[in-house]
Amino acid sequence: MAIIAAEQYLERVATLRPRLFIGGKKVEKLTDHPITKGVIDATARVYELTMDPLYADVMTATSHLTGEKISRSLHIHQSNQDIEKRLEMARLSSQKLGTCNYRCPGNEMLPSLAATTWEIDQDTGTEYHSRLNAYLRYAQENDLVVSGSVTDTKGDRSKRPLEQDPDSYVHVVEKRADGIVVSGAKQHATGAYAADETLVLPGLSCREGEEHYALAFVIPNGSEGMTYVAQYNPLSAEREHTEDIRYLGNPIYGQRETCLIIFDHVVVPWERVFMCGEVEYTQTLISRFAKTHRMNCGGACKVGFMDLIIGAAQLLAEYHGLSRASHIIQKITRMIQLTNTSLACALAAAHMGKEEPAGSSVFMPDEMMSNLAKLTTNDGFWEVMALAGDIAGGIAVTMPSERELDNPELREYMAKYLRSAAPAEKRMRITRFLQNWVAGLHGVGTAQGAGPSQNQNLILYRITDLEEKKRMAEDLANMQS
Amino acid sequence: MAIIAAEQYLERVATLRPRLFIGGKKVEKLTDHPITKGVIDATARVYELTMDPLYADVMTATSHLTGEKISRSLHIHQSNQDIEKRLEMARLSSQKLGTCNYRCPGNEMLPSLAATTWEIDQDTGTEYHSRLNAYLRYAQENDLVVSGSVTDTKGDRSKRPLEQDPDSYVHVVEKRADGIVVSGAKQHATGAYAADETLVLPGLSCREGEEHYALAFVIPNGSEGMTYVAQYNPLSAEREHTEDIRYLGNPIYGQRETCLIIFDHVVVPWERVFMCGEVEYTQTLISRFAKTHRMNCGGACKVGFMDLIIGAAQLLAEYHGLSRASHIIQKITRMIQLTNTSLACALAAAHMGKEEPAGSSVFMPDEMMSNLAKLTTNDGFWEVMALAGDIAGGIAVTMPSERELDNPELREYMAKYLRSAAPAEKRMRITRFLQNWVAGLHGVGTAQGAGPSQNQNLILYRITDLEEKKRMAEDLANMQS
Amino acid sequence: MAIIAAEQYLERVATLRPRLFIGGKKVEKLTDHPITKGVIDATARVYELTMDPLYADVMTATSHLTGEKISRSLHIHQSNQDIEKRLEMARLSSQKLGTCNYRCPGNEMLPSLAATTWEIDQDTGTEYHSRLNAYLRYAQENDLVVSGSVTDTKGDRSKRPLEQDPDSYVHVVEKRADGIVVSGAKQHATGAYAADETLVLPGLSCREGEEHYALAFVIPNGSEGMTYVAQYNPLSAEREHTEDIRYLGNPIYGQRETCLIIFDHVVVPWERVFMCGEVEYTQTLISRFAKTHRMNCGGACKVGFMDLIIGAAQLLAEYHGLSRASHIIQKITRMIQLTNTSLACALAAAHMGKEEPAGSSVFMPDEMMSNLAKLTTNDGFWEVMALAGDIAGGIAVTMPSERELDNPELREYMAKYLRSAAPAEKRMRITRFLQNWVAGLHGVGTAQGAGPSQNQNLILYRITDLEEKKRMAEDLANMQS
Amino acid sequence: MAIIAAEQYLERVATLRPRLFIGGKKVEKLTDHPITKGVIDATARVYELTMDPLYADVMTATSHLTGEKISRSLHIHQSNQDIEKRLEMARLSSQKLGTCNYRCPGNEMLPSLAATTWEIDQDTGTEYHSRLNAYLRYAQENDLVVSGSVTDTKGDRSKRPLEQDPDSYVHVVEKRADGIVVSGAKQHATGAYAADETLVLPGLSCREGEEHYALAFVIPNGSEGMTYVAQYNPLSAEREHTEDIRYLGNPIYGQRETCLIIFDHVVVPWERVFMCGEVEYTQTLISRFAKTHRMNCGGACKVGFMDLIIGAAQLLAEYHGLSRASHIIQKITRMIQLTNTSLACALAAAHMGKEEPAGSSVFMPDEMMSNLAKLTTNDGFWEVMALAGDIAGGIAVTMPSERELDNPELREYMAKYLRSAAPAEKRMRITRFLQNWVAGLHGVGTAQGAGPSQNQNLILYRITDLEEKKRMAEDLANMQS
Repeated sequence: MAIIAAEQYLERVATLRPRLFIGGKKVEKLTDHPITKGVIDATARVYELTMDPLYADVMTATSHLTGEKISRSLHIHQSNQDIEKRLEMARLSSQKLGTCNYRCPGNEMLPSLAATTWEIDQDTGTEYHSRLNAYLRYAQENDLVVSGSVTDTKGDRSKRPLEQDPDSYVHVVEKRADGIVVSGAKQHATGAYAADETLVLPGLSCREGEEHYALAFVIPNGSEGMTYVAQYNPLSAEREHTEDIRYLGNPIYGQRETCLIIFDHVVVPWERVFMCGEVEYTQTLISRFAKTHRMNCGGACKVGFMDLIIGAAQLLAEYHGLSRASHIIQKITRMIQLTNTSLACALAAAHMGKEEPAGSSVFMPDEMMSNLAKLTTNDGFWEVMALAGDIAGGIAVTMPSERELDNPELREYMAKYLRSAAPAEKRMRITRFLQNWVAGLHGVGTAQGAGPSQNQNLILYRITDLEEKKRMAEDLANMQS
Repeated sequence: MAIIAAEQYLERVATLRPRLFIGGKKVEKLTDHPITKGVIDATARVYELTMDPLYADVMTATSHLTGEKISRSLHIHQSNQDIEKRLEMARLSSQKLGTCNYRCPGNEMLPSLAATTWEIDQDTGTEYHSRLNAYLRYAQENDLVVSGSVTDTKGDRSKRPLEQDPDSYVHVVEKRADGIVVSGAKQHATGAYAADETLVLPGLSCREGEEHYALAFVIPNGSEGMTYVAQYNPLSAEREHTEDIRYLGNPIYGQRETCLIIFDHVVVPWERVFMCGEVEYTQTLISRFAKTHRMNCGGACKVGFMDLIIGAAQLLAEYHGLSRASHIIQKITRMIQLTNTSLACALAAAHMGKEEPAGSSVFMPDEMMSNLAKLTTNDGFWEVMALAGDIAGGIAVTMPSERELDNPELREYMAKYLRSAAPAEKRMRITRFLQNWVAGLHGVGTAQGAGPSQNQNLILYRITDLEEKKRMAEDLANMQS
Repeated sequence: MAIIAAEQYLERVATLRPRLFIGGKKVEKLTDHPITKGVIDATARVYELTMDPLYADVMTATSHLTGEKISRSLHIHQSNQDIEKRLEMARLSSQKLGTCNYRCPGNEMLPSLAATTWEIDQDTGTEYHSRLNAYLRYAQENDLVVSGSVTDTKGDRSKRPLEQDPDSYVHVVEKRADGIVVSGAKQHATGAYAADETLVLPGLSCREGEEHYALAFVIPNGSEGMTYVAQYNPLSAEREHTEDIRYLGNPIYGQRETCLIIFDHVVVPWERVFMCGEVEYTQTLISRFAKTHRMNCGGACKVGFMDLIIGAAQLLAEYHGLSRASHIIQKITRMIQLTNTSLACALAAAHMGKEEPAGSSVFMPDEMMSNLAKLTTNDGFWEVMALAGDIAGGIAVTMPSERELDNPELREYMAKYLRSAAPAEKRMRITRFLQNWVAGLHGVGTAQGAGPSQNQNLILYRITDLEEKKRMAEDLANMQS
Repeated sequence: MAIIAAEQYLERVATLRPRLFIGGKKVEKLTDHPITKGVIDATARVYELTMDPLYADVMTATSHLTGEKISRSLHIHQSNQDIEKRLEMARLSSQKLGTCNYRCPGNEMLPSLAATTWEIDQDTGTEYHSRLNAYLRYAQENDLVVSGSVTDTKGDRSKRPLEQDPDSYVHVVEKRADGIVVSGAKQHATGAYAADETLVLPGLSCREGEEHYALAFVIPNGSEGMTYVAQYNPLSAEREHTEDIRYLGNPIYGQRETCLIIFDHVVVPWERVFMCGEVEYTQTLISRFAKTHRMNCGGACKVGFMDLIIGAAQLLAEYHGLSRASHIIQKITRMIQLTNTSLACALAAAHMGKEEPAGSSVFMPDEMMSNLAKLTTNDGFWEVMALAGDIAGGIAVTMPSERELDNPELREYMAKYLRSAAPAEKRMRITRFLQNWVAGLHGVGTAQGAGPSQNQNLILYRITDLEEKKRMAEDLANMQS
């Protein structure tokens, strides 16, 4: 079995030495910094879940390359059932972590890359697919964390890459015998600095002349020329400076941590290059990744988050003595509707999936339904936040620090005045937990992760057969069209 | 093959003699009245579709009783695939008819009744299930139209049946050796007067003492003591009085036609009685029917309608020269989102279906997802109406009669002033067609058919395991619960 | 006092002889046809309200030309108080009629025309304003019904008037010593065939070269060369053929009746021409009319309709024994919110009004707020329909004709099975009344009347000072901009 | 003129010594702590604006007690114009501060208290009103910051005060010759620790037997027995620990700061007590305060915030090179709609205001419209957040610290990879600014401040005359009611 224990992961991650900056300062030791530690602990928890017999069906799969049991995080879907298990994994890890499963994004790229490399090889006689399979065997055997990154920094978005600083998009600056040299930067890279490897896909649909940008490769953490700059926001500051993480919103695992990855003349050996110059395949590769990502990250992952929010809101309603009020029940019901609608779309995407391209043995979710899962969640998540915030009450904004519970000058006051139908400790704890969901970065993060609504809208319009619908209407209206 | 041709259905329906009133007048001949003719023509079209090899997979099934090929309208789901085909049938017939498939409601009751009669027999030793199977064989062999009816007239809804006129709900007034005598009335009965048979289910979840109301049976059209009173609204008046149905919104098939069925001491022989007094099974029977009905009629059927609306709106946008305007594309895209969301929920309901009760061989859709399909459609359909009405423009309200196109005094004016980027005939035709969808009874009809939103809300809240979600939140918040 | 009694109006209208077609047939006598009679009865009711001392403050004003008490329908706003009374008139007449006050549209054009003719005369030395004042004196002295019409038939909307059939927009075909000759057609003309006069404004913002389209004039009913073609839809058919108008949704006054007015070489004497060729003023004239129209017809008028809908929904909830259910209260409350939000915007439009142009003595509502009143109502009205339809229940779609109450064969059945907590007569009457609001043309009619949402959106974006808001943000963000 | 300079306020605040805890630690010096300093700087800015001739009309008023020019923050509305100026003050200070005007809540209580004390005195012969006037003279002459507080800690909300710990609501524990002794705590007290005085109103509508809770008084900052516990959340932590406030979202003024105020046997002299035991007036007092608060804080204040958000979103769209994209324009337009709808309701509340009680000379806004302003904003603000977050893009969540711009190791990378159509500095600055609005506490804060939606819903339903609307419907439906 090619599955390692959490401890083995922790040992390995302790050896990583990425050049990483957080909040204006260099991070010396990944396992020590309170922010990076959250990422590592979350990832370790995923390794634990993978080992847990209770979740084996969801968290593991059988490698189509080796026949061995592997983490589903490194699996290529071989059936619609695989796609469905994959979305169940997204939901489960969200429920358990309250933040990213950092093995997710890379995993969402792998099937897309498998499908597209197979296709390029078939069409053009390249050997990208066998390279990828070789890499996959290696990753599966070592049970690696493969992070993934797709979004370029883009500069002025009204311009193409060659109309501005060419580094605005990651590209090949030199081809050498031993590999390619790459420059540019990828943003929004989820947990990349604590991953063993980072997989890089093209972030734009390339046109002729933009061959240097049609580029997919994988690179080990902290390779020469790579610099990571972590995101920094109020939650970062809070975690960086807190004396007691027990009182944070998501105590152990923290917020979703991303970074900017700068590639400054980074050398990638040819055996790690999976696309290089095939502009005509970039659109397909991106849309395959997008539909996989939108079903999982856009849909099912956020269902897991919404499960947590609903649970916390219900708890707080009970703590406040209000859980039987009709307007509270109505709000809980509406949240139930919203989360299950996202789930329905994700399930439909898996259910309607199919082998793509035919003959590749790779299965892909349905494009309409996966984009719909994401689009539904974009709006639904904001509404769930608003509803849960409504149930939480003003205390979700104005609550004092839980540290005052330990403050001898205030301890009794706190116990007296922060209690409700529940003791102050419980009520404050779940309020802070809920605050993290409804009064932080989750609304924008959810709507932007896997792409903003306009992306999905464009796809919905493009892939719908309006001619067929027009004919139906003409027929029934009795028109000779 | 136990499937008859449309012509055979037409011959049989011509022999029916229900006591029927429409708009204050008695209907003498079902096949002549312009309103009842629409129901008959729609039903005949369903028989045609069933015969059409193109749709065989969707419209037909293999009887689990006889092994023969039958109309899916008389089939008991034997698998999740059957459930999914069933919802595809709902969508298809909506696309083709623009009104009810009048074989639908009875068909949605049959599996629920099969499941529940099996269960009652298992538990209590009755023989309802074998009676039902005998009846089913008969119906399948003759390829009957079995209509269905569930909603009682209810009177004052704040009162139970025994607190008011006992006829406010259909009930047994006498049990005799040869059968039961039934009184009361069912409303909203879809197309019942043109069906071969009407299946009647209890419309309320009965309590002890209300045994006379726990009642399921099937009765041939126009049995002694039955009176049908048809709905009547502006669209009824228009069809009743028009000289040329070509100019109606849904020219051939018309609006969904329903009626009130009054049972005045109607005798039902025992072999047609499938529940009589088992109050403790009424809730389950209703919820089984509801979840089947809400997936099909609440979800997939309306997806077919929305397909038609989108097609007509796109046509009209093109006719007006506006189909490339960004706000039009945005509205079309939003409609695509809404219709596919309903579809996703219906598909998820089928995909997550299971045998229920275990051992019965009857498959039922998932309750959460089917209720969600309906709930999503309730709001979504109104929004689709608003969007399509927006695209249609004021002409959807203020358009003159298409008969003016034939009026020698106006013909040239009409051709000149009603044309757009398309000729006046086409534009007027599709405008009238769309008017029927966006400026008529469809909003309320869709929201009420298969039960209003509050019914689904109650179920969503009731069947959700809030305790599990609370535990997830407590675990992650680090609480000792 | 220049206010006439309803009887005088009725006498005058009986003398009108427009060339009018409804549903494919010529109308011989305006006062006899069931559809035109509804328009006349509604207008007569407005005359009654104007005479009623209870409503004098709202329905009458003091002429700034003669100092006499006149109908507010012929008044030019001289203050913000006048604007506010005007919107109160719109709400009141909607409450009383449940359809158009047919004196409205002309009245919404008059202040805009007064402002713009004053401006043109000031700038260019024309005498349009004095002509308008002379006409106004005549109209006020005779207390005329002045209808108004603005929307051209437009043909292909992606083309300008001169790129297609020039008659797609109303225009001057000849200028003569005694007046102008006009051709083209106006659609959506509310109640025009029963008005004494029709005021015509340009329906597009004209450019250089389109001088023949920059045209405003007033024309007596039935002038040589004019043909009226009435709208025709299911409600038209129902009213045309009914034997008893008591059982219609809006029994006496009916739906909003509009027509297409065709001008085929119609001669307009110069003293009735108020703009002819001044293309640079068309945009301003239209936007002045639009903001007046959107406050009244888009906002306040629909508030009156929503008052009726809320009242009927509450009645029906009580009749059904459900008015204390929490979800019903929540829906009623939401409707209260929606109607009052429209009202708030309309009031703000009046409150923020000002003299425009300065020196003209004409007051105009605020453009942002009036467009907002309309935009808010577009969505709000659909939602009110959905909510009221939800409360009404399936009976709003499936109810039999009230004529069955008189049917000796059914009378007792109807009394028994259509009753609820209220007798069948009452319940059926209010259900039919509500059906007319929630299952007919009101959604599209409301959204399209005074222009669809996209029109208001364009104005909102155009008139907002985004630079000012950008500066505020820069200042507070501490940026040197 | 009784208006002091910002410097005078700063000198006075430096002398305050409240017993205050923030984040588990006692605050020694109010003017030094980074969190309390933000409150003080914001308040000082309000003093500056009051002195600024540009804003004199909005920020100042003429005292009805002394005839002197005073800060509007201490004024009792004497007309609807006063109410409207008051809401303009709310909008203006929000635009300038991006956080609370900390003089607001007290000021919203003063007119309500003036009205109700006048009424109690009239009815019962007490002298509360003259006491209040004496206090007002003192406050106006010294241009004090009067904070206000109304929300009790409540404990178990399903219980009344006497059914649980009596301190769950602030109440009188002893009446003495020199004054009353008060215990309990008020939460959500905005900026109270940096105010000269705190005004306390009853937080529940009292019943007979709850006389000790019917209590209004004013108390100087830091009186014996008072303890303040400040809110603490991620933004608190960030400000507490930052080395450079320039890089915070709202650099100088920070987030809205509130605290819990504990009253432990605090003595209030009689001349500072304005209600004590008059249970029958508590409901009116609260609803007067609520309607004032909801117009200002619920409506106009948030309009100022939305102005800032729209400005920042437009800037960022331009910086990204996307401001002409149709979907961006549509989102900006929708935000313009939402903010102006809130404004319209607030303006309507002022416009429809009236003297209340008659004879008191105190003017109050309209209850329907003020509650509507708040209710509209509750939903609208969340939607504005979602729209602005959509425009901002993923960078609003994943952006590195602006401190990296100063980091010599990263400086060039940052300039290169964080630039867009604008330099990295500008883009990062406005992104952080917008992050503060769309990815923080503003959604919940806005919805909860001045009471959650359910409070407004209850009022809307209660104050609407449904009987009148029922009669309108009955009349038009032709019913003999």
